[in-house]
Amino acid sequence: MFLKRWLVGDPLKSNQAAHERLSKTLALAIFSSNAISSVAYATEEILLVLILAGTAAVAWSIPISFAILFLVVVLTISYRQIIYEYPSGGGAYIVARNNLGELPSLIAAAALIIDYVLTVAVSVAAGIAALTSAVPSLFPHRVALGLVAIIFIIVMNLRGVRESGKFFAVPTYFAIGALGVMVVVGNIQAFFGQSVSLSPDHQTAIEELTLFLILRSFAAGCSAVTGMEVISNGVKAFRQPESQNASTTMICMSLILAALFMGITFLADHYAVLPKTDETIISQLAHLTFGTGALYYAIQIGTLLLLILAANSAFAGFPHLASILARDGYMPRQMATFGDRLVFSNGIIILGVFACFLLILFHGDTHALIPLYAVGVFISFTLSQTGMVRRWLTKKGPHWRKNLIVNGAGAITTGIATIILATTKFTHGAWIVFLLIFILVLMFRSIHSHYKAVAAQIALTRDHRPPLPRRNIVLIPINGVNKAVIRAVDYARSRPGEIRAVMVDVDPESTARIQIQWAQWGCGVNLFALPSPYRSVLGSLLDYIENILEKEPDIWVTVVIPEILPAHWWQGILHNQRALLLKTALLFKERVILTDVPFHLKR
Amino acid sequence: MFLKRWLVGDPLKSNQAAHERLSKTLALAIFSSNAISSVAYATEEILLVLILAGTAAVAWSIPISFAILFLVVVLTISYRQIIYEYPSGGGAYIVARNNLGELPSLIAAAALIIDYVLTVAVSVAAGIAALTSAVPSLFPHRVALGLVAIIFIIVMNLRGVRESGKFFAVPTYFAIGALGVMVVVGNIQAFFGQSVSLSPDHQTAIEELTLFLILRSFAAGCSAVTGMEVISNGVKAFRQPESQNASTTMICMSLILAALFMGITFLADHYAVLPKTDETIISQLAHLTFGTGALYYAIQIGTLLLLILAANSAFAGFPHLASILARDGYMPRQMATFGDRLVFSNGIIILGVFACFLLILFHGDTHALIPLYAVGVFISFTLSQTGMVRRWLTKKGPHWRKNLIVNGAGAITTGIATIILATTKFTHGAWIVFLLIFILVLMFRSIHSHYKAVAAQIALTRDHRPPLPRRNIVLIPINGVNKAVIRAVDYARSRPGEIRAVMVDVDPESTARIQIQWAQWGCGVNLFALPSPYRSVLGSLLDYIENILEKEPDIWVTVVIPEILPAHWWQGILHNQRALLLKTALLFKERVILTDVPFHLKR
Repeated sequence: MFLKRWLVGDPLKSNQAAHERLSKTLALAIFSSNAISSVAYATEEILLVLILAGTAAVAWSIPISFAILFLVVVLTISYRQIIYEYPSGGGAYIVARNNLGELPSLIAAAALIIDYVLTVAVSVAAGIAALTSAVPSLFPHRVALGLVAIIFIIVMNLRGVRESGKFFAVPTYFAIGALGVMVVVGNIQAFFGQSVSLSPDHQTAIEELTLFLILRSFAAGCSAVTGMEVISNGVKAFRQPESQNASTTMICMSLILAALFMGITFLADHYAVLPKTDETIISQLAHLTFGTGALYYAIQIGTLLLLILAANSAFAGFPHLASILARDGYMPRQMATFGDRLVFSNGIIILGVFACFLLILFHGDTHALIPLYAVGVFISFTLSQTGMVRRWLTKKGPHWRKNLIVNGAGAITTGIATIILATTKFTHGAWIVFLLIFILVLMFRSIHSHYKAVAAQIALTRDHRPPLPRRNIVLIPINGVNKAVIRAVDYARSRPGEIRAVMVDVDPESTARIQIQWAQWGCGVNLFALPSPYRSVLGSLLDYIENILEKEPDIWVTVVIPEILPAHWWQGILHNQRALLLKTALLFKERVILTDVPFHLKR
Repeated sequence: MFLKRWLVGDPLKSNQAAHERLSKTLALAIFSSNAISSVAYATEEILLVLILAGTAAVAWSIPISFAILFLVVVLTISYRQIIYEYPSGGGAYIVARNNLGELPSLIAAAALIIDYVLTVAVSVAAGIAALTSAVPSLFPHRVALGLVAIIFIIVMNLRGVRESGKFFAVPTYFAIGALGVMVVVGNIQAFFGQSVSLSPDHQTAIEELTLFLILRSFAAGCSAVTGMEVISNGVKAFRQPESQNASTTMICMSLILAALFMGITFLADHYAVLPKTDETIISQLAHLTFGTGALYYAIQIGTLLLLILAANSAFAGFPHLASILARDGYMPRQMATFGDRLVFSNGIIILGVFACFLLILFHGDTHALIPLYAVGVFISFTLSQTGMVRRWLTKKGPHWRKNLIVNGAGAITTGIATIILATTKFTHGAWIVFLLIFILVLMFRSIHSHYKAVAAQIALTRDHRPPLPRRNIVLIPINGVNKAVIRAVDYARSRPGEIRAVMVDVDPESTARIQIQWAQWGCGVNLFALPSPYRSVLGSLLDYIENILEKEPDIWVTVVIPEILPAHWWQGILHNQRALLLKTALLFKERVILTDVPFHLKR
């Protein structure tokens, strides 16, 4: 408890929630780190595919990057419309649910959930790769480092939204600045031809340069646009006017993303750097631009921090989505419960656990995770754009034709990209994503139908009448007379009613002794000795209770069980074995209600 | 449940216990298999040590066997006295407890417990060795076969004593007969010189033939006398007159044991057979005596069955000892509870589990287990003989001097043997036994002191008065109005008293809605809406309860919790999370008593 307070902070009041709104500067730091941080690995992933067709094929990275730039532009314009149309937050789930119906919305939700987990795993893996590029001796410990990073992020998030914002704004801007300086300085050097002489290792082609390979490279590069939807999910977190602030922030984000991504791709093309297993492209470019001085380390630290923040952004998105799903009855209800720091603690912890699991499973390797990544994001892009198209068609309203064209272009573009991603990545791991989406949708639906079944079973209808009062017989099973038993009797008779102490007569001598003691201590409660031909104390008690229930079909039976509550948990094995058996046996008897009266041992 | 009945049989009544007494013939089968089966490995273990000093040293097996024969005689005479002195069963624990005090008795109990587990493991391992000697292709599966054997024995024992007796009498006598025929025929052949010509592989000495090696060989052979104490533990199981029947049975057992053991040793010496890893001495001798015919297989099958029965005998002894220890408060109380087939089911299962564990740990290898074996038995021999000496010295009575001399000789002989076993086997594994005895004794004492502390805490003393009646406020926490809640209200008001439904006001709108519904359904119970500045439903409830407890320091508070009881266990995660948190938070509040009112879902 103390540890929790120290880590997480004191509880916040409900009415403090309104104050938790974010300024544009803070919001850009929190919501854009996911999208912008993709530049740390997107160029590298493009090159990693192209290099399969030999060094010459690497030149294709420029046209592919322009294709991705086009995607960024289309997404920015079409998501701005969602921001204005859904000022209370328009995630793919909500847009699809509003306009396309249940199944598409659940598919969107499942796709998003998978991508939240992957965002954390990929970002942390890439962040640790930035670190180990600078400090190669840490390379063998990358999984452990990744886990430490995730746990750190979990704790930060359990502290609550705004504190995280403050904590993370400085490093975000620092990273954007550092990468920006590198891109500008590097490209100026390149333009004026002041380049370091470099003799790249000529790698021979393993595969032919087919259209499929180029599309695969494009698919890998699509990881650059992941996270662009984050702002549209969180419009409500902005200060008023929410939509306008969110829209401005989105444009800023897209500009930064586009500039950095294209700058890094140009630079990589100019220096003709190739991917290495133990050093990232960014690290190689930083070395070439700044040597090994402080500026190099600033780039690496900045990249690491930015990626950690990207992972962090999923911790805002996932619990929020989960809480919406829980409120709609597609997830267990406790996902919708605020923790005492105004955050959805359950969602934060679950996301963290799954991300840790993925990181361990894929040995903290970014490249191994990439084929699974982005597929989910593009499915949700397509579904929300399609949802918006449907919306304009049915709702119409002012400028609906223009809006329809914008979102239609978005839907077609992201749809094509989704098909490219799905086909080129399918055998490399994307099939796992489709399988998981299927499983998650099944899970959502079965949870939903369960809650609906429960609601139907417990609903009160007009033609029901409040129940008539029923009798209640209180039984206290005892096997001796002691303080624990007397405490239970004292409790039972604190309310009037028919109270019977019952014992099972296994040994006439001890039965007689107990009866004598009862006369003194029994508080006037009647003691019944039950016969026990089978020595089974439990069996005799059950028979007796069954008998009462049968004779009076409308009665309650309360069984008050005197229990010894040990001072230490491991003493539990020495006590209450019979009470446990009795409780298990009685749990499914409809009219039998159990009450433990614990006697608290001091030692 | 059905599976249990089919495996274990229908429950037996208490008064059937008296019928479970054993005739001498049945008792010999049950109680002597442990002792007699030792002949299957004792000779081999003697030779295994002697062979270290080369082939010539093997001749020492004859004098060593005579020393062990002397032990058999001494033990038989001195244990007969225990049988007459303790007609209700005189295990080492009881004799030591009666005459030597707590600590020696606990050491005896710990030593016996360890040896019961070892008896099962060693006997099953040796039994499987008999099987794999005859069918070498089964050799790689010996651990799995051993586990199957143990599980079979467990099930048989859960069926109850007498059925086991019947089931096991035939094979015991078959085995004794088969081994007897081999010893007689073999020794006659040997006497008349009709021996198969045999050129033993001359093994070179690894160690010198020191006194220590001879003593080590003797220690290994002492495994022959293990199990001789079994009859004295179980006198009560004999028909009347118990002591006389038990004594006769004991003499029969000793005669059979001595004859078979000496006969096998002579035969092994005559044929100069040496131990092999994949074939037992008995199997080699049976081959030499009968070739490979039906008689050979009869010997092997008989040995296997006898050893399985020896393992079985521990399943009678261990649970009995554990139940006595439990009754004296040195073991958890549930060890003293009869199962519904008049056997101590818990003890049977625990012994089986530990034996399986040992068998797996030592790869089902008899020789690896032997250094741990017999040490415990000899400690308990010595303690019970010493106890008898003390008894005669204090009690005196008729012939006490003669009795004193007999048990004195027993105490000295077994004492010397114990010292030899402990010193020669210490580094080979006996240290584990001493460590385990120490741990078990500690465990017994801490359980005992815990039970004593509990008894002192719950004991009623003369100067206590029965408690005065106290008031009871019943609270029903609700967060909506539905059948589950109304059921809890219906239950609560089935007894008169102050009943309050309480809800936490997190959202004014839903609070108002619930209050309106309550007017119709609340059965006249008052509904209180608690303020909740921290959105924590749990926190507000706890504050409210704390408040009541503080204001009225002598009151009971009953919290009636409406719970949804799902139809399937895995639906549990979708319900009652708040109820669980509430229960955990309230468990350690002394005057707060919880009552779950489950609402049984049908689907």
